[in-house]
Amino acid sequence: MFIDKLIAAIRKYGNPAVAGLDPKLEYIPSFIREKAFSEYGKGFEGAAEAILEFNKRLIDALCDIVPAVKPQLAYYEMYGIDGIRAFAETCRYARTRGMLVIADGKRSDIGSTARAYSDAYLGKTEIEETALPAFDTDALTVNPYLGIDGVQPFIDECTASGKGIFVLVKTSNKSSGQIQDLITMDGKHIYEKVAELVDEWSAAAMGRNGYSSIGAVVGATYPEQACVLRKIMKRSYFLVPGYGAQGGTARDAACAFNDDGLGAVVNASRSIMCAWKSEAWVEKYGECGFDHAAREEAVRMREDIRRALG
Amino acid sequence: MFIDKLIAAIRKYGNPAVAGLDPKLEYIPSFIREKAFSEYGKGFEGAAEAILEFNKRLIDALCDIVPAVKPQLAYYEMYGIDGIRAFAETCRYARTRGMLVIADGKRSDIGSTARAYSDAYLGKTEIEETALPAFDTDALTVNPYLGIDGVQPFIDECTASGKGIFVLVKTSNKSSGQIQDLITMDGKHIYEKVAELVDEWSAAAMGRNGYSSIGAVVGATYPEQACVLRKIMKRSYFLVPGYGAQGGTARDAACAFNDDGLGAVVNASRSIMCAWKSEAWVEKYGECGFDHAAREEAVRMREDIRRALG
Repeated sequence: MFIDKLIAAIRKYGNPAVAGLDPKLEYIPSFIREKAFSEYGKGFEGAAEAILEFNKRLIDALCDIVPAVKPQLAYYEMYGIDGIRAFAETCRYARTRGMLVIADGKRSDIGSTARAYSDAYLGKTEIEETALPAFDTDALTVNPYLGIDGVQPFIDECTASGKGIFVLVKTSNKSSGQIQDLITMDGKHIYEKVAELVDEWSAAAMGRNGYSSIGAVVGATYPEQACVLRKIMKRSYFLVPGYGAQGGTARDAACAFNDDGLGAVVNASRSIMCAWKSEAWVEKYGECGFDHAAREEAVRMREDIRRALG
Repeated sequence: MFIDKLIAAIRKYGNPAVAGLDPKLEYIPSFIREKAFSEYGKGFEGAAEAILEFNKRLIDALCDIVPAVKPQLAYYEMYGIDGIRAFAETCRYARTRGMLVIADGKRSDIGSTARAYSDAYLGKTEIEETALPAFDTDALTVNPYLGIDGVQPFIDECTASGKGIFVLVKTSNKSSGQIQDLITMDGKHIYEKVAELVDEWSAAAMGRNGYSSIGAVVGATYPEQACVLRKIMKRSYFLVPGYGAQGGTARDAACAFNDDGLGAVVNASRSIMCAWKSEAWVEKYGECGFDHAAREEAVRMREDIRRALG
């Protein structure tokens, strides 16, 4: 079951972190880009090759200290079919290196269509008598705006084949409050109402450690809300974006955890992928050592979170 | 500008309809499936080939009577990279046949990531000094749960390059009320609050006909809410799912229109794609005439909506 695998890896590495793989071209060292463009042209194919090479080396550098990667689908879709191929290869490679893969697609739709998304990322697609995995990731982020119809197919897959989801509850961005912070007639915020639903849904996919494979996205940029949400969704693991480049600190992220040090994974994307660009590491490693810089940043982040958890 | 092109096509064909292309394999006549599987194998490649052939023939049958197609991304993503290729080819083909393409992806994310989605479907992707279109569709459906940050990049693209979006406001599914119907402290439903935001946003991309390229998704299955929403979002075109197989009637859909007969496009997916399976047409056309059946159903739907609009 996803949540038990995740918790086992967090315990093994002593690291409740996820490395976001949102590979903008400017994040990729020029020697990788130039090689890919000279071999595959300065179009989608070359860009996708550069992204894949970058991701693979990051995965190699992180796979024995970070439990999971979180590729953000938008950054692959923007390179068309070649980009999607780089996404699929990235997922495959991460899994062969023992990492869990959380596809960040924030998908949702009416029931029959949500089922198609669920088949695409978590389950299998039936073609005549056979069932084939399309992208085969371990977990997917899901948008709750359509209510249970749009989430049930994902939950069913979590129950049936041990995959996981993280439902958007309180997102890390500045304007998340425009809808999520609206207050309903019973005095509760929308994020609390969604949290109550997620808590209800979480019962369908409980693991062995007291946590469910039905998790929630709760931004590190809103620590007060995270404390409230921690109490509503007792069984749900939180996927916490917003640490680092978006402004969330380890202390902020700590609000998403329980006293046992479990209950959340903190994502960092830019700070790990672009560690090689920071003053501290650009001299030490140069751009060729981008993977060493990423690993060093991942270790720094791990210690930062550990300290905050006390 | 998207909205003016859409209105021009609606006027030209006297038909405010969109044909949804959500090609489940069971919707596709067996002669197409068998040919594709025998040539490309019973895997993703064969399935994608069958889907593409089915779509192309539907597009040929509909392109001079229906203004736009709405491919639902989930039904392509579930066939992996081959499925995405079928999606891209379908969009390209529809546009060469003069149809507008509304990609139904219900995308949303934090600002920088929403920008990547916007580049992928509406704009272009920058690779070194050149900008290339990844999927190049005319409009995209967008989820509002993250607030303006997650929508602004799409709006910017609508302003800059004349594309369009439809923001989910009140969706057609049964459980849409779980979040969308919650009532806020000022006595308004969430769908009304979202509608107010969409109305505000719509000013950024006004066309020549008094309508904006920033539209809204409002399900035919909720006619009373559509009447309320029509008054809040005066400048927004409504994309109306839920007609036909989902239970919405032409009279229900009519609530989304203004008195001038403009203001909405009604989507039908299953009823058109699977028209050949219905008792009325299976004898007349057989499965080989699935495209004729689709056209006849599209004409029937057009007359049905015209009658309801009076």
